[in-house]
Amino acid sequence: MNRNIHTFIACDHEYEESDIVLFGAPFDGTTSYRPGTRFASAAIRNESYGIETYSPYLDLDLTDLKVFDAGDLEFGFGNTERVLNTIEDMTAQILKDHKKPLMIGGEHLVTLGSIRAAVKKYPDLRIIHFDAHADLRDDYLGEKLSHASVMRRCWELVGDGRIYQFGIRSGDREEFTWAKDHVFMQKFNLDKLNLTVEALKGKPVYLTIDLDVLDPAVFPGTGTPEAGGVTYTQLTEALNKVFQLDVIAADMNELSPTYDQSGASTALACKLLRELILQL
Amino acid sequence: MNRNIHTFIACDHEYEESDIVLFGAPFDGTTSYRPGTRFASAAIRNESYGIETYSPYLDLDLTDLKVFDAGDLEFGFGNTERVLNTIEDMTAQILKDHKKPLMIGGEHLVTLGSIRAAVKKYPDLRIIHFDAHADLRDDYLGEKLSHASVMRRCWELVGDGRIYQFGIRSGDREEFTWAKDHVFMQKFNLDKLNLTVEALKGKPVYLTIDLDVLDPAVFPGTGTPEAGGVTYTQLTEALNKVFQLDVIAADMNELSPTYDQSGASTALACKLLRELILQL
Amino acid sequence: MNRNIHTFIACDHEYEESDIVLFGAPFDGTTSYRPGTRFASAAIRNESYGIETYSPYLDLDLTDLKVFDAGDLEFGFGNTERVLNTIEDMTAQILKDHKKPLMIGGEHLVTLGSIRAAVKKYPDLRIIHFDAHADLRDDYLGEKLSHASVMRRCWELVGDGRIYQFGIRSGDREEFTWAKDHVFMQKFNLDKLNLTVEALKGKPVYLTIDLDVLDPAVFPGTGTPEAGGVTYTQLTEALNKVFQLDVIAADMNELSPTYDQSGASTALACKLLRELILQL
Amino acid sequence: MNRNIHTFIACDHEYEESDIVLFGAPFDGTTSYRPGTRFASAAIRNESYGIETYSPYLDLDLTDLKVFDAGDLEFGFGNTERVLNTIEDMTAQILKDHKKPLMIGGEHLVTLGSIRAAVKKYPDLRIIHFDAHADLRDDYLGEKLSHASVMRRCWELVGDGRIYQFGIRSGDREEFTWAKDHVFMQKFNLDKLNLTVEALKGKPVYLTIDLDVLDPAVFPGTGTPEAGGVTYTQLTEALNKVFQLDVIAADMNELSPTYDQSGASTALACKLLRELILQL
Amino acid sequence: MNRNIHTFIACDHEYEESDIVLFGAPFDGTTSYRPGTRFASAAIRNESYGIETYSPYLDLDLTDLKVFDAGDLEFGFGNTERVLNTIEDMTAQILKDHKKPLMIGGEHLVTLGSIRAAVKKYPDLRIIHFDAHADLRDDYLGEKLSHASVMRRCWELVGDGRIYQFGIRSGDREEFTWAKDHVFMQKFNLDKLNLTVEALKGKPVYLTIDLDVLDPAVFPGTGTPEAGGVTYTQLTEALNKVFQLDVIAADMNELSPTYDQSGASTALACKLLRELILQL
Amino acid sequence: MNRNIHTFIACDHEYEESDIVLFGAPFDGTTSYRPGTRFASAAIRNESYGIETYSPYLDLDLTDLKVFDAGDLEFGFGNTERVLNTIEDMTAQILKDHKKPLMIGGEHLVTLGSIRAAVKKYPDLRIIHFDAHADLRDDYLGEKLSHASVMRRCWELVGDGRIYQFGIRSGDREEFTWAKDHVFMQKFNLDKLNLTVEALKGKPVYLTIDLDVLDPAVFPGTGTPEAGGVTYTQLTEALNKVFQLDVIAADMNELSPTYDQSGASTALACKLLRELILQL
Repeated sequence: MNRNIHTFIACDHEYEESDIVLFGAPFDGTTSYRPGTRFASAAIRNESYGIETYSPYLDLDLTDLKVFDAGDLEFGFGNTERVLNTIEDMTAQILKDHKKPLMIGGEHLVTLGSIRAAVKKYPDLRIIHFDAHADLRDDYLGEKLSHASVMRRCWELVGDGRIYQFGIRSGDREEFTWAKDHVFMQKFNLDKLNLTVEALKGKPVYLTIDLDVLDPAVFPGTGTPEAGGVTYTQLTEALNKVFQLDVIAADMNELSPTYDQSGASTALACKLLRELILQL
Repeated sequence: MNRNIHTFIACDHEYEESDIVLFGAPFDGTTSYRPGTRFASAAIRNESYGIETYSPYLDLDLTDLKVFDAGDLEFGFGNTERVLNTIEDMTAQILKDHKKPLMIGGEHLVTLGSIRAAVKKYPDLRIIHFDAHADLRDDYLGEKLSHASVMRRCWELVGDGRIYQFGIRSGDREEFTWAKDHVFMQKFNLDKLNLTVEALKGKPVYLTIDLDVLDPAVFPGTGTPEAGGVTYTQLTEALNKVFQLDVIAADMNELSPTYDQSGASTALACKLLRELILQL
Repeated sequence: MNRNIHTFIACDHEYEESDIVLFGAPFDGTTSYRPGTRFASAAIRNESYGIETYSPYLDLDLTDLKVFDAGDLEFGFGNTERVLNTIEDMTAQILKDHKKPLMIGGEHLVTLGSIRAAVKKYPDLRIIHFDAHADLRDDYLGEKLSHASVMRRCWELVGDGRIYQFGIRSGDREEFTWAKDHVFMQKFNLDKLNLTVEALKGKPVYLTIDLDVLDPAVFPGTGTPEAGGVTYTQLTEALNKVFQLDVIAADMNELSPTYDQSGASTALACKLLRELILQL
Repeated sequence: MNRNIHTFIACDHEYEESDIVLFGAPFDGTTSYRPGTRFASAAIRNESYGIETYSPYLDLDLTDLKVFDAGDLEFGFGNTERVLNTIEDMTAQILKDHKKPLMIGGEHLVTLGSIRAAVKKYPDLRIIHFDAHADLRDDYLGEKLSHASVMRRCWELVGDGRIYQFGIRSGDREEFTWAKDHVFMQKFNLDKLNLTVEALKGKPVYLTIDLDVLDPAVFPGTGTPEAGGVTYTQLTEALNKVFQLDVIAADMNELSPTYDQSGASTALACKLLRELILQL
Repeated sequence: MNRNIHTFIACDHEYEESDIVLFGAPFDGTTSYRPGTRFASAAIRNESYGIETYSPYLDLDLTDLKVFDAGDLEFGFGNTERVLNTIEDMTAQILKDHKKPLMIGGEHLVTLGSIRAAVKKYPDLRIIHFDAHADLRDDYLGEKLSHASVMRRCWELVGDGRIYQFGIRSGDREEFTWAKDHVFMQKFNLDKLNLTVEALKGKPVYLTIDLDVLDPAVFPGTGTPEAGGVTYTQLTEALNKVFQLDVIAADMNELSPTYDQSGASTALACKLLRELILQL
Repeated sequence: MNRNIHTFIACDHEYEESDIVLFGAPFDGTTSYRPGTRFASAAIRNESYGIETYSPYLDLDLTDLKVFDAGDLEFGFGNTERVLNTIEDMTAQILKDHKKPLMIGGEHLVTLGSIRAAVKKYPDLRIIHFDAHADLRDDYLGEKLSHASVMRRCWELVGDGRIYQFGIRSGDREEFTWAKDHVFMQKFNLDKLNLTVEALKGKPVYLTIDLDVLDPAVFPGTGTPEAGGVTYTQLTEALNKVFQLDVIAADMNELSPTYDQSGASTALACKLLRELILQL
């Protein structure tokens, strides 16, 4: 008898033979409003057995691929920097082994850990960012390491003009003003993604998805639902375009199972993760 | 004083005088993932008093019609074949009395019971099927009688080319491959329904609606929510077209009140049932 | 140390210096189906700290304005007329002081109290009404003062042709028949709002929003969810047009936090209220 | 085929042949805090099929008795006096026909309607009252007809020394002071019930149970949970004593299914109702 | 990197070196009322990381023991006999390897599978059974294999006088009558357990716990909550006595996470399972 | 018109005239398992209007006292030390002004901030601690400032033999071992409180209540429910004894409204807070 292996559906290969490595980053320690994203990766693994491994959209099946699911990183709460170091180490190891990391947050700040590792290997890195919130504050109530300032911290690593934001519909006035000089920001929708894809051909791309870019109608299970978002179909069509690029790593954040009583948001996250893996 | 009659709103006529017969099939015994559809018909009856009897869409009122609500069939759990026999007997009786049966599931397997009766009376039967899932597996974990194989079992009764599926966006690869040779399948949306309606003019039609054909945004209260579905308006416009045909029986399945905390899914099911009755 | 002031976010100015006055009317005493709107104004205040004060849609910030939040009116339950008097007095006082009242219901009947005050000051008043339900019954189970007859009571005050309804998709047959002769009613959607805006240029307008005009997908947290509604974006674009007019008072009703387990409906109400304030 | 009869389990006899008549009073119109008891009687009927008809405590079975379930009275909301009249008429009719009324509330004010009828037939009536709250206010925010003043209104009908209260642990200071001169009140627990039973031998007794007399641990599903209450076993043992008396009518109030997510409170209410019927 | 092992806390040893083997039986296919126990074993594993490995009651720690967690058995739904065979095979294997099986249900019928294996190895087997329900029906709506008849089926295997039931407070009249001649039944509470322990000294004992023996106050998260049960402390003290005997296998059933919104029932099940393991 | 003052019921006096000062510490940043206590103080204020100001237990009324409610402290998340400083400053200010601080957590770590201030003013301070958990770890996953080590940190301030713990039933083995030499710990229940009260006569006492000392039956709304706790009545009787001592400050922690769907836990916390204020 073997011990109980628990993975995202069909991602049960060994590390060495896998091309993609999945891991969870169950951290929500800087969440200022409604916590709960720490439970996302476990919920996604549990509920993934309710979806199919086959995508009729892509005509591909998870069982055709070799994916390793490393489970969740272990964090204490109360020391944000240590959390980010753990994430950076994990991503660095995977990249070093010529595999593609796919991280499941957690709050959006976890992206910073991965970006730190990615930019070291790929100094020419670009970031494509789907989100309702700009996340461009310099600090939040005095804290530099916050979900609300994560893209500002990333900008410090990659520099001007290398972050491409889509779907942004919330932030303070300064974020929107600052953005004009430092990042590309598509407000409210996913228009102009074609131009971005055109511009980033041949560049290494990190893809970060804050699931609240979706309308709360289709994705209520998140801590800061923001009306006026995009549909599931709009998001997946956009991702199809992004995957024409050289995506070297990706993450998906901000599912909060605590606020997903029907389970529909977790099910959507599972389906989207399947599509991400199949395209990655 | 009279005993408490409990029906779907305004469906309180006697059996003999009625043209349409409503009944519940509270069975979810083969549900592999999240059960709960056994509670749908009772919830729909209870909550129907929250909607109006009048449809401004059709300018028709339930009080203009004669409809009998037979309540729920009684099943034991654990013997699927006996459940299907009970449903078949009920549908056969209603058809024999020249009335139209309208069944409220339960899980989708209940449709098989009704189809068995319908195809005996109408050997030329066609089936129009709205669903997120193909339900075309030959078996599910060895079980032939499963919600996941219900349309395959129906196909055994009606034969090639007589099942028309719409909105399908989930299944395993074999189902999609098999479908190409045996049924008409419209993936992802309700397009090409016009062609189907044209083709089925004059034929007896059984209409089966798995409510998860709707997007989980509008219908989260179901066991297997599948992102990327159709809107309520798209579905009702499609039904308007279907009712240009000779619909001899219908069913509506897979509401799971357990996952409908806001009540919005149950309210939608009530409204849709009103429209079905008015058009039937 | 100061006592704890509790307001909608950034609406913490003194009454005298403010141009807009916010107040809650936590009444749901005639709700026939699922009560709970009495908790709306408190929930909106609590949850408003989860949204931003800045609107990227309007490029305006609540901190630029002077708004006073008076808290909630106090009502006993069981005496509807007294409740309406309290609301009328409050609205009259605010209008007398040359400020704009913005009321948070409660059930929709609370609008009658405000309209009574508004029509006294502005005899030429027009009402723009967004709702799923016509609310035009003459009485409901014998009660004249009911959420289901509130617009009929308002019509008695303003007369024929001065109420403009949008998004209406539920009511009994008589309401729809009666409406043809007495009010402008746009069924199902917000079309023809342009014509209304054109017609009402220069007139004083009272704006009343029943949030269930929205589709239950985007706004499940209400007592009578009615499928087939408008999107958040459609509603806000419509409001942009309305605010080209001289809106002298407004209200927003029928959030029921009891049925908003994810919090997404309350968050939407907060965001919409911010937009209302910024445009008022 | 017969129409769907919906009763409390096994209470499906005809009115004429029955000794006990069950009916629902789904009213919560004066509830000042958290409404929802209007849904209690329907929930109790629905969930009663989850309990057994046999009581091992009493070695009696519901199928041994003849009980009629009249369903729910129909009320409009907004006119309290009319609601009470409807209840009074119902109770009077049942008493006139020499049957025992058993009412399911609703909020506690519904008791007043029944007491009005009972005291007309039995001028010598005594009331035994289990509750967490004294309900002895002269008025509540100016309203004489309120759940919070129901026993005060009853006292006006039966006079001093004829109301016996048990389990009371909440009220304002005046209620407790007033009680000393006018009613028997056992604070906090059910002690001294023996003395009451001794004193009331031979007198006609009306039994009214506010279910919040139970500790919120065993009965969380109520609008105003009050810590420090009695256990289920303590309550049923007390009822065993009460039924040594001549109980001519009874009611059970204040279940609020809205706050009973586990269903345990509704299940308890069903079980307690079975015991009440069997002893009545 | 290793694949993600998912076990009950600290039960992460290899099969060969372990003395106790834990496994889940996620089956609720004959549940007649509210399903959901299929999710119990996964929930218990997930939530076990919220409890301590150390028991201050026993002054023992899970880390002192060697326990193997085999994960969940895989079942299709719809074929009860096949499910029972899978369970019997698993239990037989563990017993054959001289280890102690500890099964987590699932509905109570799963016990029958384990008992079949146990009685083959230990023909002299006795069963100690904690439950609110007698589970002694000969059949349930015609089904012999039902949660409501599981102990009757077990009796067919072990014979008269070898089943000892405690806490029983629900069943139909025939069950209670039948019990008098065939099993020992302690109604309502856990009294007389001392006598049972005395009588069973030296005999092989199978311990089966239906968690609804607990009062719904302490354990609301179950499909058929039955008021009037025992406290957590009473149950654990009773178990201390049982473990003076030679318990050769055990199971714990009927947690339904669907009805455990606070998580307190799942947490209790985790704690009780820890105590069971430590004593086994 | 005055701005909306929001306080715990009847605690609406000015700071200067008050003897007791209430404030919220909405922090749960080190919570390792299920967060949510950050919402406790707001929920308690909101729901306090559902309880009475009068205590029949004490025959005292909140309206007889002068209490100031300062609202909630404002914290960023991610910097634990800064949070503790804010709390310490607040408590120090209140003590300096010769008033009694009463803090509403938040997770239990907030107590450390208050104790730091209290021990500076009262070097001879004793701590009485009601809790399910020992909270005596030296660190938790490397973090010294954790809810799981708060009493260890407090011990560093007050020294051996000055912390008196009651109701403790969870912790790791080392905590229980360490406790023997450094604190008084009453395991499982509240026995021997009499001896403690005797011993602490004349000493300044800080009272800290972790509400999970209560059994999850009576208090499910907390992040780490631990079966086997005390009843509400046992706790209040114990507090009656504690208030024979010179309690110079107190706090009440670990309500998590997220897990209190019925509202019964929040209502209990409100009632207990009323009793605390009345006795303080």
